Order: sequence, then C-alpha cells, then structure tokens
Amino acid sequence: MLIALLTDFGLADPYVGVIKAVILTIAPESRVVDLTHAIPPQDVAAGAWALATAVDYLPADAVVLAVVDPGVGTERRPVAVQIDNRHFVVPDNGLLTRVLARRQAVQAVVLDNPAMWRDGQDVSATFHGRDIFAPAAARLAHSVPLDALGSPVDPAGLMRFPLPTPKCEGDEIIAHIIHIDHFGNAITDIGTDLAPTLFAAKWITARIHRRRVDARAATFGAGPAGAPFWYLDSSGHAAIAWRNGSAAQRLSIAVGDVVRIRLK
Amino acid sequence: MLIALLTDFGLADPYVGVIKAVILTIAPESRVVDLTHAIPPQDVAAGAWALATAVDYLPADAVVLAVVDPGVGTERRPVAVQIDNRHFVVPDNGLLTRVLARRQAVQAVVLDNPAMWRDGQDVSATFHGRDIFAPAAARLAHSVPLDALGSPVDPAGLMRFPLPTPKCEGDEIIAHIIHIDHFGNAITDIGTDLAPTLFAAKWITARIHRRRVDARAATFGAGPAGAPFWYLDSSGHAAIAWRNGSAAQRLSIAVGDVVRIRLK
Amino acid sequence: MLIALLTDFGLADPYVGVIKAVILTIAPESRVVDLTHAIPPQDVAAGAWALATAVDYLPADAVVLAVVDPGVGTERRPVAVQIDNRHFVVPDNGLLTRVLARRQAVQAVVLDNPAMWRDGQDVSATFHGRDIFAPAAARLAHSVPLDALGSPVDPAGLMRFPLPTPKCEGDEIIAHIIHIDHFGNAITDIGTDLAPTLFAAKWITARIHRRRVDARAATFGAGPAGAPFWYLDSSGHAAIAWRNGSAAQRLSIAVGDVVRIRLK
Repeated sequence: MLIALLTDFGLADPYVGVIKAVILTIAPESRVVDLTHAIPPQDVAAGAWALATAVDYLPADAVVLAVVDPGVGTERRPVAVQIDNRHFVVPDNGLLTRVLARRQAVQAVVLDNPAMWRDGQDVSATFHGRDIFAPAAARLAHSVPLDALGSPVDPAGLMRFPLPTPKCEGDEIIAHIIHIDHFGNAITDIGTDLAPTLFAAKWITARIHRRRVDARAATFGAGPAGAPFWYLDSSGHAAIAWRNGSAAQRLSIAVGDVVRIRLK
Repeated sequence: MLIALLTDFGLADPYVGVIKAVILTIAPESRVVDLTHAIPPQDVAAGAWALATAVDYLPADAVVLAVVDPGVGTERRPVAVQIDNRHFVVPDNGLLTRVLARRQAVQAVVLDNPAMWRDGQDVSATFHGRDIFAPAAARLAHSVPLDALGSPVDPAGLMRFPLPTPKCEGDEIIAHIIHIDHFGNAITDIGTDLAPTLFAAKWITARIHRRRVDARAATFGAGPAGAPFWYLDSSGHAAIAWRNGSAAQRLSIAVGDVVRIRLK
Repeated sequence: MLIALLTDFGLADPYVGVIKAVILTIAPESRVVDLTHAIPPQDVAAGAWALATAVDYLPADAVVLAVVDPGVGTERRPVAVQIDNRHFVVPDNGLLTRVLARRQAVQAVVLDNPAMWRDGQDVSATFHGRDIFAPAAARLAHSVPLDALGSPVDPAGLMRFPLPTPKCEGDEIIAHIIHIDHFGNAITDIGTDLAPTLFAAKWITARIHRRRVDARAATFGAGPAGAPFWYLDSSGHAAIAWRNGSAAQRLSIAVGDVVRIRLK
C-alpha cells in the first residue's frame, strides 16, 4: 500500500529517512512517496494547502502521513482520520482543514494506544513523527484497523482554521495569494466556483502592489512576453504567472498579498 | 521495472510526489528513482546534460520520464522514444539532444491517444507531467507497447539543439563550461575525443577569467592546495576543481564561460 | 533488504539517482531509503553525526551506504564493516566514528575485489560511490557475504577522529554545539551521561555568545515566548531551541561554538 509523506522536516537532517526506516520496519511491503518535506517550519497553513493539492491523485486506499507540528508533545492530539477510503495520520492542528473543506471524515481516533507506538522504545517529547505517527501510518498500511490505534473521537471536532476566500467590494473582487510555487507562480484563493467566471469574462483588470495583471492565457507559452498574466493553475485556482520567469519575483508577491480584480 | 525521473519541478511543491502517485496507481510494481528535480526552471539544456550523464547507469530496460517543459500546452509535442531498449517520455523540445548525440532512436510516437492519459480526468493545460507524461511512462513500465501510446513519428525529426563544442584557434583550444556540479566542479565540453589529449600532454596552460589553471591531478585529494586543477570528471569530460573547495566559487565560473587552453 | 544512503552529493546533480540505479540493477528487490544527501561537502564530522542519529532506527539487518569522501581515489581505503547485524559501506576516513563510539565492529574488509565492483566498466578515479561503494552495498543486500567483497582488515584499525566532549572547569560545564538542525535547534555534545543531570538540576544558567539560556522545557510548545530554552533532543542530547523560531539564527550559533553552563 502507498504511504504519502508530507512534513516540514527538510532534507538536511535524517529525520525523514528515519521515519521511512520506521515505516519499512513495520510494513516492509509498503511504498513510500514523498509529497514534500519543504513546508516552511511550523507553517500549518502551507502544509494544509500542499496536502489538498495532492490528495486527489493518491490511490483510493492510500495512507497519508502529514507532520507539521509546532505543538508536538503538548495537548494537541495525534489523530488518524479516515476520509473516503484514505487514512490520514496527523497532529490535530488544522492540517486537514483544506481536505475537510471538500470531503467528509468518516471516522477518527486519537493515537492513544501505546501498544501501537514504536516498539520497545520510550516516546520522545519532541519527535512524535518517528515514535507515534510513523508507526500508526505503517500499521494502517499493514492492515491494522483504524480503531485499533486508539480511542474514537468525533470527526466533527477535528480542528480547522478559517480559510481565506475572495470577497466582493462594490464591483471589485478582493482575492488573496495563498501559495507561491517553485516556478514563482502566485496562486490565489479564486477556486473552482469563481475561477471560470474570471476566465470567461470579456475583460479583466487586476492590481497587485500597484502592478496591473490584465492578460490571460491558457498556457505558459501563450502568455505575453514581459508582462504578468492569469492562468488556471493545475490545482483549479486562478494564478498569476510570468512567461519563462518568476511572477512572484517580478512583482514582489508574497503569500497573503491582496489582488483587486474587476471583470466585465 | 525502473522508472527514472528528471524534472525542473523542485521539491518544495508536491508536483513530484503527485507524479509518483500517478505512476504507482497505474504501475504499482514499478520502482521509481529520482535523477534530479533541481534542473533550473525551464532550462532544457541543463536537463539534457543531466540526462546524458545518468543514462548509461540505468538498467537496460529502464523508462525515463524527463519533464523540463516551458512550452507545456503549446504546439510542442509530447513524445515517447525508444533508444536501445530504454524508453524516454519527454516533451519534444531538445531534452534528448545529448542522449541522441551518442545513441540512435529506434522508434518514436507522439502521445496523442487520450485513452492512455490519466484516467477519467480532464487534461490540464499546464501540468502535462501529471496528466500525460507520467501515465505514459507508467504504462510503458507496465508492458504497454510504445505504439499503443500514440501515432508514430520519425525519430529523425525529434528536436535537437546545437551542442557547444571546443574550437581550435591557432594553437589554442577554446572550450566552454557546460555544467557546474554540487561541489563547484566546473565541467567543460572537452569530452571523450579530446580529454585524453589534454591529460596526456606534456604540459598544459589554461586561462579562465584571467586565472591560470595549469595543474592536473587524477583525484581531488591529489590536487594542489590553494590552486585550481584539471581532472577527468566521472562523465568523461575534462573539468576544473579546487581541493576541498568550490572551483566555481573561487574562480567565479558560470555555465557558458570560455576556457582557453594550450597544450604541448 | 533496506539500503540506507547518506552522502554529501546534494540533489542538484543525478549522482544520487545514478547510485540508486546501480544498486537496483544489482539488487532489484532491495528498498533504498535516503537518510540525507545534504551533508556539507567533504564534512566527514557532520556525516558521522547524521549517521549516528539515524542508525538505531534502521532495521536490524540494514545495509548503510555512506559516502562523504574528500579522499576519493587516494590511499584512504574503501571498506565494508559489520556492526551488530548491519553492514556499513564507507570510505575509511572517520565517518563511522560516532557509530563505533557506541557499538563494536564485528568484522571488516577492504573493498579490493574488482569482481565485486560495477560490472564491465572501468573504475573512475573520482566517483567511487558509483563504481565501488554502491555495488558493494547492493551485493551485501543481495546476500553476498562480507568476506567475498575483499580482504579482511582489523576493525580496531578503522579510522576514528576525536569527538568533542563537554569539559568541567571549576563549577562550569564547557559544552560545544555539534549540530544545527533544519529547524535551527542547536544540539550540544551533552549526551546521555550528562543530559539527565542538566534537566534534573534545580536551576541552570548558561551562556552562549554572551546570551543567557536559562529556561528548560519538555516540548517546543512549552518553551518560553521570546527566549531561548533547553530541551532534550530526540537524539538524546541537550539542545537549545526557540519556540516557533530558529535558535541558531536568533543567537547566531554555529557548529563548534562553546556553551558555558552552571547547574545547581
């Protein structure tokens, strides 16, 4: 079974390798795939975004192990959650917010059964990824049922944070940059409900940091030279790109920035 | 079967993870190996170099999925190419230039059979890696024959870009830096035809950015202290190193720089 | 069988991918796990630290391939060493120092049997990782016995470098920073013998770069806001953290720095 990993551990230390070694010791037949380990340290919102963009492409029975966990060792609960037929092993700190915005949790448990933690070792206070989360993910992949991992909790009580959403002010749409990707594309919170309107409108005029973004293109190659343009990102969100360059750099865009848009 | 991946996607976003999830959904028995995902964005020439240095070490029946694709969604063709017994799934934009300089393509198809794309989903305009290339690579690894993926095209018509080659001017060789590696070694376009001459010559005197590079060594440890030296890179090219340091940093070398060499 | 990789090769070049391809050509059934490839170039001490923090979590019969090898091609010996039931394939340059500080080597060989090197190819002078070490690791994972790889050598003669250890001067403990992790946590050489004393003491007062570090916390979340604090790292060492931030950045800490500590 496939286990997908997402953390803020980086790749400079052996933390991710240790997690994989723990998983493959318990479930040697499983396949481990890295989604990313470059979530900015402690940035739960960035982790939630990355998780949501990837989840649709995972096998229908995948196990997801996601650890962005500033509260490790404190009262935040380590949980395992079934959503559709996939299982998510996470700290209950909002990391599932974007996944749960589109899908219903079926069942959840808190990982309070020590027999399911890493074998024969004390649990550290600062590396639950290794000692609690990885063993839980491995056991789920190894056919241990969810309810063997701990006590049931109400999925409706899982923590979620409020998501940025575009607002309408007069004839303007006020949108927000929610992610800058590796290529410098700046992705907005204009998602599947509003994005088609933006691309179907006769014309569009937008401003971010006093710079205009008026062009639209279906592909990067079709964008204008030397000017930013809108495209529909592969995540389904309206986004701003720069042909053969980084829109984020050219326009000094950062996550949280506001884009004001008029359509006609 | 082994599927080797090479992209400019970086590891900050889950793009590579999504590609692996798509591959392992279609061909769960395949082995996926990362060559690199740190090709500079849109730098097809850098991708072509990395691909050529790795290909000899892949299993004889490997599938290679290489995506550096500034023209995604435009008229550039997505193709699959058989070279020896290996299959390469790539945008037809020159990425195979260096591989094809040493090996003959046996057969090629354009990936125009939608039944072979990702199942039950629309194809995005901006992420063919996920929607067209990864499924093609997975199917080839899963024993789907090449010609089932799309219409045949003439391998002789695959795009190639002109390669930098050393030139002779009077008694000078004018060579070019074609790659700086992770250690700061600066690799030149002096390859298997000319490199033996350089290392067999009685003496050598070279200049890059007015700095002299006159020493030669068989190993990094045998190089002089505090001075750059020539060595034969594991790719078979003459290269410039600095013992326990970065030649590229010490000499401010960048890709494209010229080295002027005299031998005797 | 699991093969764990640790190198200073970085992920920008296909060096690591080539090593994996070589391994999977020889031992296609093995599982390859990356510990890290971000050891600073040629930093054997950093590699030794990373190796020691990971080794306890590897399967009892794992093979470890660790290459940080400034002396590649020179007189330093390529070796394979059995420690407990695990095998380590390394240059004999001190990389095993920290593993050997806690465990006994059972058996060792120098990799001088060319029949066990990469098939049908010359050995390069600069990439023994690909040509000598990876094939050895793959063969060990593929059930080739250790002594088939080369001539026996005395494990007691394996190279080790002196380890930093805390010193007592009057009523002060003089400790050293031995690692900065991805989160900016600064880990000291106060290990399992002395760390319990530090955390059991009634009070502690410490100085690094004239900054005081007097607080202690069991978890990151329980640390003070806006001040550095001590915690017990998952490696078993006393370490300095900053809640939701980087202690290393805030206090300008680097590897090798001294911390002066008084306990009561």
